[in-house]
Amino acid sequence: MAKLFNMPSGAVRQAIRCVSSSLHSTTLRAQTTMAAAMPDPLPVRQKTPLVTEVGKEPPGPAMKTNVPGRESLRLKAELDKIQNTDAVHFFVDYANSRGNYVVDVDGNIMLDVFTQIASLPLGYNHPKLIAKMSNPDNMVTFINRPALGSFPPADLVDKIRGTLMTVAPPGLQHVQTMACGSCSIEHGQKAMFMAYMRRERGGKPPTAEDLETSISGQAPGCPKLSIMSFNGAFHGRGMGALACSHAKWFHKLDFPVPDWPMAPFPKLRYPLEDFVRENEQEEQFCLEQVEDLFETYRQKGAPVVGIMCEPVQAEGGDNHASPAFFQGLQDIAAKNNGYLLLDEVQTGCGVSGKFWAHEHFNLREAPDVVTFAKKMLTGGFYYKQEQKATEAYRIYNTWMGDPSKIMMLEEVLNVVHQNDLVNNAADVGQFLLQGLLDLQKLYPGTMKNARGLGTLVAVDFPTTAFRNSVVITLRNKGVNAGTCGEAAMRLRPSLIFTKSHASVFLTYLEATLKDLIPGRKV
Amino acid sequence: MAKLFNMPSGAVRQAIRCVSSSLHSTTLRAQTTMAAAMPDPLPVRQKTPLVTEVGKEPPGPAMKTNVPGRESLRLKAELDKIQNTDAVHFFVDYANSRGNYVVDVDGNIMLDVFTQIASLPLGYNHPKLIAKMSNPDNMVTFINRPALGSFPPADLVDKIRGTLMTVAPPGLQHVQTMACGSCSIEHGQKAMFMAYMRRERGGKPPTAEDLETSISGQAPGCPKLSIMSFNGAFHGRGMGALACSHAKWFHKLDFPVPDWPMAPFPKLRYPLEDFVRENEQEEQFCLEQVEDLFETYRQKGAPVVGIMCEPVQAEGGDNHASPAFFQGLQDIAAKNNGYLLLDEVQTGCGVSGKFWAHEHFNLREAPDVVTFAKKMLTGGFYYKQEQKATEAYRIYNTWMGDPSKIMMLEEVLNVVHQNDLVNNAADVGQFLLQGLLDLQKLYPGTMKNARGLGTLVAVDFPTTAFRNSVVITLRNKGVNAGTCGEAAMRLRPSLIFTKSHASVFLTYLEATLKDLIPGRKV
Repeated sequence: MAKLFNMPSGAVRQAIRCVSSSLHSTTLRAQTTMAAAMPDPLPVRQKTPLVTEVGKEPPGPAMKTNVPGRESLRLKAELDKIQNTDAVHFFVDYANSRGNYVVDVDGNIMLDVFTQIASLPLGYNHPKLIAKMSNPDNMVTFINRPALGSFPPADLVDKIRGTLMTVAPPGLQHVQTMACGSCSIEHGQKAMFMAYMRRERGGKPPTAEDLETSISGQAPGCPKLSIMSFNGAFHGRGMGALACSHAKWFHKLDFPVPDWPMAPFPKLRYPLEDFVRENEQEEQFCLEQVEDLFETYRQKGAPVVGIMCEPVQAEGGDNHASPAFFQGLQDIAAKNNGYLLLDEVQTGCGVSGKFWAHEHFNLREAPDVVTFAKKMLTGGFYYKQEQKATEAYRIYNTWMGDPSKIMMLEEVLNVVHQNDLVNNAADVGQFLLQGLLDLQKLYPGTMKNARGLGTLVAVDFPTTAFRNSVVITLRNKGVNAGTCGEAAMRLRPSLIFTKSHASVFLTYLEATLKDLIPGRKV
Repeated sequence: MAKLFNMPSGAVRQAIRCVSSSLHSTTLRAQTTMAAAMPDPLPVRQKTPLVTEVGKEPPGPAMKTNVPGRESLRLKAELDKIQNTDAVHFFVDYANSRGNYVVDVDGNIMLDVFTQIASLPLGYNHPKLIAKMSNPDNMVTFINRPALGSFPPADLVDKIRGTLMTVAPPGLQHVQTMACGSCSIEHGQKAMFMAYMRRERGGKPPTAEDLETSISGQAPGCPKLSIMSFNGAFHGRGMGALACSHAKWFHKLDFPVPDWPMAPFPKLRYPLEDFVRENEQEEQFCLEQVEDLFETYRQKGAPVVGIMCEPVQAEGGDNHASPAFFQGLQDIAAKNNGYLLLDEVQTGCGVSGKFWAHEHFNLREAPDVVTFAKKMLTGGFYYKQEQKATEAYRIYNTWMGDPSKIMMLEEVLNVVHQNDLVNNAADVGQFLLQGLLDLQKLYPGTMKNARGLGTLVAVDFPTTAFRNSVVITLRNKGVNAGTCGEAAMRLRPSLIFTKSHASVFLTYLEATLKDLIPGRKV
C-alpha cells in the first residue's frame, strides 16, 4: 500500500498498530486489555490545545474497548429507564476530553471529527473558554437568565455588536437571538410570513377581522401560506421547521405537518469536472420545478412566501449545489414575490472556509433571512429591514436565547480571529478532501463522490450497510465520525482541526477500508 | 384609610413616603433627584438573601427616575437598530440586582413580582447559585455542551435522577429535557402523535408507504391529526405550539397554523362561593364543547389525539378552573382515545403551593404528558411509558436541553427543599391573595376577581387602559409586576418571596390605587 499521509507522531503510529484489524464486527465486546493505556487524566485547568499548540492534546487515539464499552452500555441501560436511548452512541467523559479528542466513560480516546453533531467550535475544554468561565465577573450572566425581549441586560447591545454583528453576513444589519436551531428556523419563517402579509396589506394595518380570526387560527388572520423547501432538507423539529424537512422518515412519521411544497434538490454527479453539462441540466431541472411549485401553490390557495434552503444539505446526505443554483433560487424567489431563507445552522461559523457558506455563492444581494446555531453557541437569525417586526411581541418568547451563550461566543470569535480559523477551515478542508479523493482512487468501489466546502466534507459508500460498518469500525479504531443521507460519512470537525488531525483521520480510515475489503485485509 | 398590612421595615415605610404620589403619568421623566439614594452596589460574591435571610436585599424599592429611565431609553434606541424593541420594558443591571429586587440601568431598585416572566426560581444572584458557579469542577459542564441524545455526559443519569426525577409528577417515570418551553411543547405533542398512531397500527410496524410519504409530509405517513386546546391558551411560538395558543392576536396574525380544535375555557365568576352553580354550569358547558369537538374533528378527518391545557391559563388572563373540570377533561380524553397534556411551563416548580399545579386536581391518574421550563431552568416534559419513543431519533435534536441548566436546577431544588419553598409559596400566596381581596373591598370598582393558586396570583381591573396605568404607576413607584389577558395584573414572584415582600407590594399597590382613583388622591 502506498503511504499516503504523513503520520503526525510516533504515538499515533503506535496507536494504530495497537488497534488491530479485528474490530470490524458490530458485536459489542469489552476489550479492556487492548490498545494503549489512557494517559493520566489532565486536570481541567491545564492549558489545552489551540490550533497552533496541539501538544497538550492526547498524542492520538487510544482504545481500551469497542465503543460503546461496558460502562457506556451500563449507563445507557440506566438512562433507558427514563427515556429512549436508541440514538446514544456512547457516554462521554467531558472533563478528560481535550481539543479534537473525545474521551468516553470506558477510557477510550477518540479523534472526534463529528464534534457533538457539528456544534463544538473549539473542540473540548478550550483554555480560552475555561479562562472566560473562571472570571467571576461573568458569573452574573450565568445565574440570572433574563427574559431578553423585555428585560435585557445593560451590556446586551455592546455584546451583540461585539459578536453577532461583527460576523453578520454582508448586507444583513438585523439579528435576533433564539435558544436553538429549530426555534431560529421557526421565527425566521415567521419573519417572512409577517413581511409578506404586510406587503399584501399594502401598508394598511390589519383589520379587526384579521385580529379576531387569528385567535382561533382561521383565515384571514391566519391565511393559508406556505414555505418551499427541498427533498433531502433538514431544518429542525418544531412543526414549521419539520414541514420543511424531507430527509428521513423518523423525523416526520405520524406528525401532521402542513402541506407545503417540496422541490427536488440537485443530485450532482462526481467528479464535477466530468459531469459539467449533466449537472447544469440537473440544476436547471430543479430550478424549473421550484418555479412551477410557486405557481402550483398559488393555484392551491397557499402561496409560497419564501424558499428555505441549506447551503449544503447536511442531514440529507451532504448534497452540494453550485453558486448558479443558489443565484437562480434567489432570482426565482424575487420574481414570485417570495423571500430566500438560507439555513446556516450547520454551515455557518467559518467551517466552509468563509464565515457563512453562502458567501461562496456570489448572490446579487444578501438572502432575506440567515439562521444559525450549533457552533455559534446561540441560535438566532439575521434578517433585512423588510423582515423586521413592526409590532411588539411578534418575534418573542420568554428567554429569546441566553446571554451566557453570547458571552462564550465572544471568546470563540476572538479565538477564530486570532488564529485565523476560517482560513484554517479552508486549508484543512482542502487537505481532507484531497486525502479522500486519493483514497477513492486507491480503493475503487469502496468510496465515491468525495466532496467538500471547507471542512464540510463527506464521502459516499456503496451501501448503507457498508457505510455503517466503516463508521463503526473506524470508531472502534479511535475516530468518531458522523453519517448522513443513505450512505454518506459526514465530517464535521471543530475549527481547531489541523492537517495533522486530518492525517490521523485519513490513516485510520485507510486502515478501516483495508479491514473491510474482502481479500485486502492486512 | 385602614392600615392593612404590616410594613416590613422603617426603610420601606420611608421609601414609600419618598415615592410621592405624582408618578402616575405614563410620560417618561428623568427624576434623578427624588427618592432614596441607591445603596452602594453589593459586590457579586457577597452573600445575598435566602428566604430566611432577607437582610442582604435592598431594604425596599428606591427610585431615581421613571421607568424606563434615560439610560434604558438610550440603550433601547441602540438595540432598536438591530431588532424590534417594542416589548422592552427596561434594561437591567443584573450584577446589582439582589433577591427579589431588580435594579435597572438608571439605578432604580424595584421589587420584582414578575421575575423575568416567571422564570427566576430564586430571585437574583442567589448565593447558592453563585457558589455552584464558583466551583471549578462545574466549569466543564458549561464549556462542552453535548449533543445530549447521542453523546451524553457520564453523570447524566445521576443528574437527572437527582433533579428531575426527584420532583417528577406522581405517576410519571420518564422525562426528556429540551432547551425551552416551546420545544418542550412541540416534542410533547409529537410524543402523543406517535403513541396515538402506534396504537392505531395495532402494534404493526409502519408500512413502506407510511415511511415514504412521511418524507414529503403527505398521508398516510403524515396523517391528518389534531390536538385540542382552549380559547385563552398560550403554549409557545413554534408552529405546533402556536396552533394550540389562542390568547392574543400578535402571537398568531399572518401565520398559517393548522386547523386544530379550540374549545372554550371556563370563565369563572368571582367570588367563587357566590357563583357555585353558575360556575359549575360554565364548566359543564365547556366540557360538553370539548366532547363535541372530538366528534367534529373526527368527522373532519383530523381526529384529536389529545387535549392540551394549562393548569392555570397564564398569558390568557390567569384563568382558573376547578379540579372537577380537569378531571372531566381527563375522562373525556380517555373516552375518546385521546391523551391529556398539561402544560406546567409557568405553573410548575412549586409556585402553586404544590410542586406541580395539577397535583391540586386529584386526577384519577397522572396526565400523559407534563411540560416544564421557566423556573425549572431547563425545558422538558415528563411522560408515560405509552408515550415513550420506540425508535431512535424520534424525539431528538442537536442539543436536547443543556446539562448546565440541570446542574443549576440541582442547586435550585436543594434550596427549595432546604427552605421549604413550596410550602412558602402556599403561605405567601394565601397572604398575597387575602391582601388583594382586602384591597378589592376597600377600593370597590377599581379591582375585581382576585384569584390565586399559591403565588400564581392575579386580579382584574375595569379596563385595559386602567390596568396599564396601574402597572406603569406601580413600576414608577418601585414594583415591577406583569400583565395578562385583557385587564389583569399577573404576579409571578420568585420562590424566595416572603410575606414581607408581599406587604411591600400591597402597600405600593394601595398607594397606586389612591393615586389613580379620581378624588381619592392623597
